[in-house]
Amino acid sequence: MLLELENNTNYLDKQALIERLETMGFRVVESDANILAVIGGIDSWVVTEDFAKLPNVAKVHPLTSNFKLASRQTKPSDTIIKIKDVEIGGKDLFIIAGPCSIESREQLEACAKVAKEHGAQALRGGAYKPRTSPYEFQGMGVPGLQLIAEISAKYGLISVSEVMDASQLPEAVKYLDVIQIGARNMQNYALLTELGKIKTPVLLKRGFASTYHELLMAAEYIMLAGNPNVILCERGIRTIETFTRNTLDLNAIPALQQLTHLPVIADPSHGTGVRSLVLPMARASVAAGAHGILVEMHPDPDKSISDAKQTISFATFADLMRQVQKIKAALD
Amino acid sequence: MLLELENNTNYLDKQALIERLETMGFRVVESDANILAVIGGIDSWVVTEDFAKLPNVAKVHPLTSNFKLASRQTKPSDTIIKIKDVEIGGKDLFIIAGPCSIESREQLEACAKVAKEHGAQALRGGAYKPRTSPYEFQGMGVPGLQLIAEISAKYGLISVSEVMDASQLPEAVKYLDVIQIGARNMQNYALLTELGKIKTPVLLKRGFASTYHELLMAAEYIMLAGNPNVILCERGIRTIETFTRNTLDLNAIPALQQLTHLPVIADPSHGTGVRSLVLPMARASVAAGAHGILVEMHPDPDKSISDAKQTISFATFADLMRQVQKIKAALD
Amino acid sequence: MLLELENNTNYLDKQALIERLETMGFRVVESDANILAVIGGIDSWVVTEDFAKLPNVAKVHPLTSNFKLASRQTKPSDTIIKIKDVEIGGKDLFIIAGPCSIESREQLEACAKVAKEHGAQALRGGAYKPRTSPYEFQGMGVPGLQLIAEISAKYGLISVSEVMDASQLPEAVKYLDVIQIGARNMQNYALLTELGKIKTPVLLKRGFASTYHELLMAAEYIMLAGNPNVILCERGIRTIETFTRNTLDLNAIPALQQLTHLPVIADPSHGTGVRSLVLPMARASVAAGAHGILVEMHPDPDKSISDAKQTISFATFADLMRQVQKIKAALD
Amino acid sequence: MLLELENNTNYLDKQALIERLETMGFRVVESDANILAVIGGIDSWVVTEDFAKLPNVAKVHPLTSNFKLASRQTKPSDTIIKIKDVEIGGKDLFIIAGPCSIESREQLEACAKVAKEHGAQALRGGAYKPRTSPYEFQGMGVPGLQLIAEISAKYGLISVSEVMDASQLPEAVKYLDVIQIGARNMQNYALLTELGKIKTPVLLKRGFASTYHELLMAAEYIMLAGNPNVILCERGIRTIETFTRNTLDLNAIPALQQLTHLPVIADPSHGTGVRSLVLPMARASVAAGAHGILVEMHPDPDKSISDAKQTISFATFADLMRQVQKIKAALD
Repeated sequence: MLLELENNTNYLDKQALIERLETMGFRVVESDANILAVIGGIDSWVVTEDFAKLPNVAKVHPLTSNFKLASRQTKPSDTIIKIKDVEIGGKDLFIIAGPCSIESREQLEACAKVAKEHGAQALRGGAYKPRTSPYEFQGMGVPGLQLIAEISAKYGLISVSEVMDASQLPEAVKYLDVIQIGARNMQNYALLTELGKIKTPVLLKRGFASTYHELLMAAEYIMLAGNPNVILCERGIRTIETFTRNTLDLNAIPALQQLTHLPVIADPSHGTGVRSLVLPMARASVAAGAHGILVEMHPDPDKSISDAKQTISFATFADLMRQVQKIKAALD
Repeated sequence: MLLELENNTNYLDKQALIERLETMGFRVVESDANILAVIGGIDSWVVTEDFAKLPNVAKVHPLTSNFKLASRQTKPSDTIIKIKDVEIGGKDLFIIAGPCSIESREQLEACAKVAKEHGAQALRGGAYKPRTSPYEFQGMGVPGLQLIAEISAKYGLISVSEVMDASQLPEAVKYLDVIQIGARNMQNYALLTELGKIKTPVLLKRGFASTYHELLMAAEYIMLAGNPNVILCERGIRTIETFTRNTLDLNAIPALQQLTHLPVIADPSHGTGVRSLVLPMARASVAAGAHGILVEMHPDPDKSISDAKQTISFATFADLMRQVQKIKAALD
Repeated sequence: MLLELENNTNYLDKQALIERLETMGFRVVESDANILAVIGGIDSWVVTEDFAKLPNVAKVHPLTSNFKLASRQTKPSDTIIKIKDVEIGGKDLFIIAGPCSIESREQLEACAKVAKEHGAQALRGGAYKPRTSPYEFQGMGVPGLQLIAEISAKYGLISVSEVMDASQLPEAVKYLDVIQIGARNMQNYALLTELGKIKTPVLLKRGFASTYHELLMAAEYIMLAGNPNVILCERGIRTIETFTRNTLDLNAIPALQQLTHLPVIADPSHGTGVRSLVLPMARASVAAGAHGILVEMHPDPDKSISDAKQTISFATFADLMRQVQKIKAALD
Repeated sequence: MLLELENNTNYLDKQALIERLETMGFRVVESDANILAVIGGIDSWVVTEDFAKLPNVAKVHPLTSNFKLASRQTKPSDTIIKIKDVEIGGKDLFIIAGPCSIESREQLEACAKVAKEHGAQALRGGAYKPRTSPYEFQGMGVPGLQLIAEISAKYGLISVSEVMDASQLPEAVKYLDVIQIGARNMQNYALLTELGKIKTPVLLKRGFASTYHELLMAAEYIMLAGNPNVILCERGIRTIETFTRNTLDLNAIPALQQLTHLPVIADPSHGTGVRSLVLPMARASVAAGAHGILVEMHPDPDKSISDAKQTISFATFADLMRQVQKIKAALD
């Protein structure tokens, strides 16, 4: 439930109330301004009216959505995640670019240079690769993490890379600014719970056949375990269409933004799987209201060790950056 | 196959060649400039090299796609369909707006007025309604067609309405500037063939579980039967997502534009099924490169006799028109 | 709504009541024994309690499903459709076999002979073919209908063939015992309404992305227009699986049988699209409780002009018949 | 690639050849009889003809499928997994029954008794529960594992329970005869690799939007890491149908059995999500050729703490066992 406090409630009274509720065994989260969220699925077990009698409580509101911490009902204002001097979820676009897999220092640095030059804020590159086949390249592992940390720092970029298992987390948090969770792991609850115990922001990708509701419940796992810094990412779902690898569901952008206060970005590379569609769909993602986009690029796309078909060249990336900034400027 | 003519081929020689081919029993279509398309699925039955020996033929190219008349390979330049002074598929957006069902003169005229005022080119309204249930409102029929013809003319708008069966065509062509074929009828081949016998442009909506390829083959049915004026419309497909009525597949916009020369528009009303998502997805459609959009609006959306949940108000429509024009202007 | 009559209501009183209701403008259907179904979507417009005051009415029950005539609530007992001496929907399996397309007298007669020999009741064969491409074989048309009528009669089989448009119905009813409506036409409402005006039983195939509810509403269109003889057919839906052409949804068999009193059969040929899967899935269909199955066979499957990949040989058909009869016998 | 040995190759020569290949850095698996599979995705890097010159090698066959150890090409004969005196994948049905979640000793023991009495071989029960919401019951954990081990032993049943994370494996292997991997974890590659390091048989459920190919590649991860004991389970996929929770894809049963030598079972409880459909779909699963089935039952289904809607009663289970055994007996 949500407790709306009286307008004149001062800091100390608010803290006293939180402490009192916690002593009673409740989990309490400070939502916007004068709102305390009492969460934990307990709504059905307590007499909510009794909470109205607590000091400084003006009104009690039920929490109707199944996801509570992630709900816009709990926190009406947009969550802005600040990393270094970059704000994610605010008024500026957050652009993540880089290769699918980290292949070498040269390849990654070439990407970093181009990313920075054209205004991206973050560098991505896979060190651990989820591959359908055990016979395919599985990624460089920790040396890859070290490389992306070093090169991101050199170019003033935020480092983003995927973690596939809780056992990789202790190393990953040393090197990464943002930890990406891939579509296949969106409902890996053990991993989600471990992500709640760190403070590093998490880029949570939608499962390839998961609903908005399930994506929000997955974010809830991370938030309930203690990490409020979750960025949601629409990356396409499986449908009857076979021309594209996935169907980028841009409906998800405004829909999620109505349901949650968390930042929502789009991945037109995986969302299409087709190189020639990445640029127009990056524009469409921004026009739909995405807080940012994630794109795969490579110095020599055809030679990319993974996802070559959807990887764009540096020239296309430059054009993309120019075009999405024009679209962003045309939004109200 | 495609016959590339010699550069200096004059009009008479070209006509003579066409006549000769037709006498031989082939169907010939003048594609761009110096290209003749010889179609009919005959590629596998003839010795294509022999065609290179015909007078004025410089080169013979195989036609690789299954759809031939609709293929951009056959005709590289965009098809622009001209109705009155409006060009569809050209540099300007083509906006179709109006109620789901025509309910009354007052309702339709109110929509026409608002559509015109904010810059739409066409008025839509259903006279024949495909309804899942036989117990639901089935539309006004011919009186509805008369109404939309009269009101469109009064406001200088193009009239657009759906036809569900070949038996409705003789009446429909009297009243409509564009005949819409709904998702459920995309593969109604008898109807498609009849549409090929008229000249009225056809707005062909993608089936709710049809691929791009199938949509293009459906267009091919109409074109092969004689009507080249086909406008394709992405209107959302069925997916695992249940929050929205359909998943608007904007990948289809640039993908179809790469595959075909026909105009491609988007329908964010059916493509979302959720009123609050129509405006952002209209923006996204235009940013993806759509030649136009189709939106459902109503003087009193909640009272709309059909599709109320996805119908926008006049105020939202005005805002939408303003925003999509800004996005359009921001495109290269 | 449903009117439950008093136990001792005699024939004349019942007819009088029906007449009275019809005079009041209601559509009345005699359901099981002592039940009259008053249908037409009027439940929300009348005071249902008032009907309890009519003579011989014991109780008034609301009709809760959207499909009324097709609902098992309206008619609890199974509908058995009798053609010649064959009962469809009863205790015996109803087996339809034959080629995808009618190609020649020899081909069709060979199939008829084998079908009869191994215990099938019906011969199918396409005279009008719905083809994704206009360049593919479109069927023999009326001569094909004449052929299947003649050969079915000769072998004592029921003739089944597809109709794609209302304009083909007048000829079709002359030659066919059962008219098949294909997946693409399941929501062709103009055609469904025309089918309601004839008495020939209709084999209605589920659309490839249609729900059970939509299939039942399509049956309702036919029944409401006057033809109660509808056989439903599960033929596979489009899913994320690409190894098979469609995913045969056998859940539909028991689910539909709980929702409706109409016969429900399965088509493992289209439902798999893979020759080697037809036999085991025919067994599974019968084990799920299907009232019958429809299979495509051909004297020389690899040379079948359409659907060759899913067409079985005569030897496999013989084996299939033997195995499904064993499964049928093992059911309670 | 596959090395076909000469017919008269004796044991020592075969071992010498294996050793020689391993010294060269290849992974070698003894397939059927006289076949050695040399695996590791190396086919494109070596001159396969050279292997024909090795002593005792009669012929070299390419391995064409992406999954190698799981492929029926590598091992034509069915894999039979033996646990205690039960053979999985052989001529007898393997029936797993039990509650969704282990709730108490009484509940689990009641299920075990009924399972044993009616001929099931294994007892299932969730100790770790993957729940969409963090606010729902997460399972009893290790005490649940201890309970199922104790009760299975008492009733002579095989114990089956789900593991969600590699960190749970060390405890799980102490208590379980079969470790189940749920749909959400089918592509949790870190977990799959850990499962390869143990010998306990793994029941691998198909992801709810995964293809047959992806399921086989997931099995390949486990097998390549060293554990050949993998049982595949079809448990339904997400489709456009909403009446059922999932669409049980029984095409998968014969299709997988053609592609792989591993045992394949079906789960009609999750595959339907509807209690009244479990029994007929259990019959259909067996008729399709499944090596076994997995069903959820509960002493008081409506009170089941999870999956109540699809959980059957003891009475229905008894009926189901009787009916599936009759179907099994009717198979050739």
